[in-house]
Amino acid sequence: MKTDVEISEETVLKPIAEIANQLGLDETLYDVYGKTKAKIDLSVSQREQRGKLVLVTSINPTPAGEGKTTTNIGLSMGLNRLGYPAISALREPSLGPCFGMKGGATGGGYAQVVPMDEINLHFTGDFHAITSAHNLLAAMIDNHIFHGNLLNIDQNRVVWNRVMDMNDRALRSLTINSKRIQHDTSFDITVASEIMAIVCLAEDMDDLKHRLASIVVAYDVEGEVITAHDLNAVGAMTLLLKDAMKPNLVQTNENTPAIIHGGPFANIAHGCNSIIATKTALALSDYVITEAGFGADLGAEKFYDIKCRIGNLKPDATVLVATIRALKYHGGQPLSELQYENLDALQEGIKNLVQHFDNLSKYQNNIIISINAFATDTESEIAMLMALEEELGCPVVLSNVFMEGGKGGEALAQAVVDMCEVADDFKPLYDSNQPLSTSIETIAKEIYRAQSVSYSEEAQEQIKTIEAMNPQGLPVCIAKTQYSFSDDPKKLNTPRNFNIHVKSVRLSQGAGFAVVLLGDIMTMPGLPKHPNAENMDYTDKVIGLK
Amino acid sequence: MKTDVEISEETVLKPIAEIANQLGLDETLYDVYGKTKAKIDLSVSQREQRGKLVLVTSINPTPAGEGKTTTNIGLSMGLNRLGYPAISALREPSLGPCFGMKGGATGGGYAQVVPMDEINLHFTGDFHAITSAHNLLAAMIDNHIFHGNLLNIDQNRVVWNRVMDMNDRALRSLTINSKRIQHDTSFDITVASEIMAIVCLAEDMDDLKHRLASIVVAYDVEGEVITAHDLNAVGAMTLLLKDAMKPNLVQTNENTPAIIHGGPFANIAHGCNSIIATKTALALSDYVITEAGFGADLGAEKFYDIKCRIGNLKPDATVLVATIRALKYHGGQPLSELQYENLDALQEGIKNLVQHFDNLSKYQNNIIISINAFATDTESEIAMLMALEEELGCPVVLSNVFMEGGKGGEALAQAVVDMCEVADDFKPLYDSNQPLSTSIETIAKEIYRAQSVSYSEEAQEQIKTIEAMNPQGLPVCIAKTQYSFSDDPKKLNTPRNFNIHVKSVRLSQGAGFAVVLLGDIMTMPGLPKHPNAENMDYTDKVIGLK
Repeated sequence: MKTDVEISEETVLKPIAEIANQLGLDETLYDVYGKTKAKIDLSVSQREQRGKLVLVTSINPTPAGEGKTTTNIGLSMGLNRLGYPAISALREPSLGPCFGMKGGATGGGYAQVVPMDEINLHFTGDFHAITSAHNLLAAMIDNHIFHGNLLNIDQNRVVWNRVMDMNDRALRSLTINSKRIQHDTSFDITVASEIMAIVCLAEDMDDLKHRLASIVVAYDVEGEVITAHDLNAVGAMTLLLKDAMKPNLVQTNENTPAIIHGGPFANIAHGCNSIIATKTALALSDYVITEAGFGADLGAEKFYDIKCRIGNLKPDATVLVATIRALKYHGGQPLSELQYENLDALQEGIKNLVQHFDNLSKYQNNIIISINAFATDTESEIAMLMALEEELGCPVVLSNVFMEGGKGGEALAQAVVDMCEVADDFKPLYDSNQPLSTSIETIAKEIYRAQSVSYSEEAQEQIKTIEAMNPQGLPVCIAKTQYSFSDDPKKLNTPRNFNIHVKSVRLSQGAGFAVVLLGDIMTMPGLPKHPNAENMDYTDKVIGLK
Repeated sequence: MKTDVEISEETVLKPIAEIANQLGLDETLYDVYGKTKAKIDLSVSQREQRGKLVLVTSINPTPAGEGKTTTNIGLSMGLNRLGYPAISALREPSLGPCFGMKGGATGGGYAQVVPMDEINLHFTGDFHAITSAHNLLAAMIDNHIFHGNLLNIDQNRVVWNRVMDMNDRALRSLTINSKRIQHDTSFDITVASEIMAIVCLAEDMDDLKHRLASIVVAYDVEGEVITAHDLNAVGAMTLLLKDAMKPNLVQTNENTPAIIHGGPFANIAHGCNSIIATKTALALSDYVITEAGFGADLGAEKFYDIKCRIGNLKPDATVLVATIRALKYHGGQPLSELQYENLDALQEGIKNLVQHFDNLSKYQNNIIISINAFATDTESEIAMLMALEEELGCPVVLSNVFMEGGKGGEALAQAVVDMCEVADDFKPLYDSNQPLSTSIETIAKEIYRAQSVSYSEEAQEQIKTIEAMNPQGLPVCIAKTQYSFSDDPKKLNTPRNFNIHVKSVRLSQGAGFAVVLLGDIMTMPGLPKHPNAENMDYTDKVIGLK
C-alpha cells in the first residue's frame, strides 16, 4: 500500500474556494491561504447550529494503534457518500513533533485531511501567532521587572514561562542572567501554552480578551496574583491572535470539507479543537465529527466536562474506537505477536473497551462501538467483538477506512445517522461548583475506578489557595498518563485497587479550569537520537514527512 | 493630517489577484494569502530581467527623520502615474519592534504599502518560518550533545544560538541547565539570524541548501568547524523555508504593486530585501525601486558590495534622500529647533550629504539627490540645496510624497527615468578576493574617511582563522553605528581624524560574508518602560499600531 504522503500527493484537490462555496460561504466569509487552505470568518460561528455533534474517542492508546483520527475522517467521508453533509472538526498538528518520531496528525491511508504537508508545516500560522502572543506577555513581565518593578513582582514566583513549537529538551531548564533580571525559567512546547487552551475555549473576541486578561503570570512579594491585565498586555495579545481565532477549512482526500483549528495538549489542557470551529461546523453542516486527545478516560471526559460545559454544546452521539490488535495488547499479547489470533487475550482486553463504554454511558446513551479493521483480524476475533452488541445493547460496527476511505466508513456512517435520531440526555459527570477535591474524586472513582485519592501537602495548599479565590464553576483538567486508567502507564487494561496521588494543582484562570497533576508531566518534548528531521528534504516535493 | 494607520485603512484596496494579473501573472504563478497578500512562484525570478534597478538610500539617519522608505514608495507611485510601470521592492518589517517604540516599516503618510497592519503583524509567515528553521538547527545541536555527542562538539564553543521575533532583553544571557546539556546561550531577534541573510542572498532552492549546509554551528574539541550539514539538518530546514523563499506581493496606497521580502539586520547582516524578490520585480516591471538599511555608508555600501556582487545585479541609478531638518541636525541645530530656518546649520550639514554623494560616485555615476519636503522647509533653505545641482553635477529634486503621494513624486520619477537612460559603469568598491584587512581598510578610508584602522588581538586571530579556511571571494559586512560615518554615534556630519577599531570578526559562512564588528552590537532589542504594546488593541479594527 502507498504511504500517507503519497496518497496525500496523489489526491486531486479541489480549489478550497470551491469547497467553501459548497458550504454556502460567499467570498466575504472566507479568505484563502494558498490554493488549499482557507480561514472562515468568525461571524459564521455565531449562526444557528443545525448540525448533529458526534465525538470520536478511543480505548487507552497502545503502540498497536487505534486510528481515532482516521476513523473520524473516514466517518465524515462515509456520511457524505451516503448523502448526509458532514464535516470533520479536528485539531491542528503541532510542528515540533514532526521532527521527532511521531507522524503528523492528519489521519492515514485513504482517510486523510490534505495536503498533509501544508497542514503539518506552519499551516495558516495559528501556532506561530499563539507563540508570539505567549512570548510577548513573557517579555512584558521581565521588561516590567527591568524598568523598576512597580508591581513588586517576586522574581522567584514568575509562573509564566516562554514557548516554542519545537521539541527542544535543552530549553526545559534555563537561568536568565540578564541585567536586573535573574530568575529560573523554561520553555514549553506551544501546544502547552495556556493561550492555546484559551483560543480553543473562547466563544468570540470579547471572550478571548476576558480570558487573556485573567491569565495569572506571577505573584507579587505579598503573594497577590499578577495577571496579564495588570501588565496592559491584553490588547496587543488580542491583535496578534485576531487571525488565529478564525477556523481553518481544508478538505479530505475525497474532497469533503474538514475544519482544523486549535490543538491544546491533552494532559495539562483539554485536548480538543476550538469551540469556535465546532460551532462553525455545526452552522454549516448536518453532521460534525469531532475528536479529543488520548483515550476516552482523558479525551472524552474533558470534551464532555470542560469543552461541552463551557461551550454549552450537546453531543448527539459518541463513537468509541478500538482495534482488535490494541485490545489483544491490553489483554496481554506481546506487540510482536499481535498479527496472530488470540481469543483469550482479546476476551481479556475487551474489558478495557467495556469500561470505556460504561464510562461514556454516564454522560449519554447514544454510543456506538467502531472496530477499525486490520488485515490480520480473524473471523473469530471479529465475531467475539460483534457479540458485544447484544451484551452492551450498543451497535458494534466494523469500519475499514484506512484501506477503503469513505466507502469503508459507510456502515459506521449509517449507524451514526440512526443513533442521532434517538433522543439523548447528555449531562456532564460532576457539578463544577462543588469543591475541587470532590470533582477530582468523582472522576478518579467513576472513570478511572481508583480505590482512593491522596494529595501531597503542596496540592492541599494549592487547592486551598485556589478555593480562597472563590472561583465560579471551575472544572478540573486532570494531567495523567494516557496509557492506563490509573496514573501508572504500565497498568494496562482495567486496573483495580489502586490509589491516585495528586502531586500538585494549578489554576489556568484564563482557560477556566484547575489543572490537576498526577505525577510529572513533560511539557517540552525532546528529539530522539536519530530524529526524523534527518530524513526530511524538499526537492520538487516534500520528502520524509510522516 | 491623518495618521498612517488611518490612511492605510481608508485605502480602497484592489484584490491582490488583480494586481498580480496586471503584472502578467496567471494564477498558477501566485498564491493569495487573504485578499491583500500573495506569494509569487520562484520560477518568475529566473526569467529575463527587463527592468531598471534603482536604489533609494539616505544620509546618516537622525531623530529628525529622512523618509527613505516613504520616498521609495512615492517614487514608484510617481513612475506609475507617469506611465512607467514600476515596483517597490522592500524589506519585510520585523514583528518584535512594533511592540516597542518604533513604528512599522511600511512608509508613511500618502506613500505607504498597505494594509500596514497585516504587513507588520505576521504577514505571510516568512519570519516565523525562519525562526523555526533556526531553532530546529539549535535543537538538533543540543540533541546531538545529549545523545552521546559523536561529533565531539565542545559545549563551550556552540556558536549557534536561538532566535525569537520579539524585543526580549531577558533572553540576552541564559544558562542551559538541562540533563547532559550545560552551556551559556542567548536569543537574538529573528532578523539577526544568519538564515535571514541566507534567504535574502540565495539565488534559488539549490543555492539555499548549499548555503544552509555551510552554516558554522560549533567547534569540536579539536577546534574543527561543525556545520549544519554535519548535523543532517539541511533538508528539514529547507522544508521549513520552502514557502518563505517566495516573494510577497502587496500594493501601495495608490494600488501599484510592491514586493516585500526578507529583512536582514543592517549591522551584522547586509540589510537588503532578497535577491529573489529583486529579480522577480526586474522580470515583471520596467523600474524596480529598492532600498537598503540605515544610511548609505552601511546600506548602499552593502547593497553594492554584497548584494549586487553576489546576485550579479547592476543598479542603473541611486537616489540619495535627505531632509532639510536632518541636514540642519547634522549641522548642529538642536532637535527642538529644527522647525526654524538656519542657513548656517544647513550649510554645515550639507557636508554629510556631499560625502555620501562622493562615496556613491565611487560605485556609479548615475546619482540623484532627493529632498523629502517638510512643511517647515523655507525657500532659502530649499534654494541652498538646489545650488548643489551645479556644484555636484547631479540632479537635485524636491519630492513631497508624504503629503501628496505619487503626485508629489512625479518630478523625482521623471529625473529617475532620464538618469536611467544615461550609460553607467557600476563596479563594487573592492576586490573580495583580497585579504579581509585590505577590504576593511578600503571601506574605512574610502567611505568612512577614517585616518587609521586598529584591530583587537581577538580580531587578528579571527581573521587568521578565517583566512586559513581559504574562502573564495569573501566580502566584508561591517557592523557599526548607523548615526555616524565613524564608529562613535555622537560624531555627526563628517568626522575626520578618527580611528576605526575592529573588535571582532566572525564568519557567516552560509550567508557568504565576514562580519566585522566595530564595538558591541545589540542583536536582541529590549522594550522601553512603556512599550507601545500597552497602547495596542483590536476591536473591529487595529488600534495603536504605528
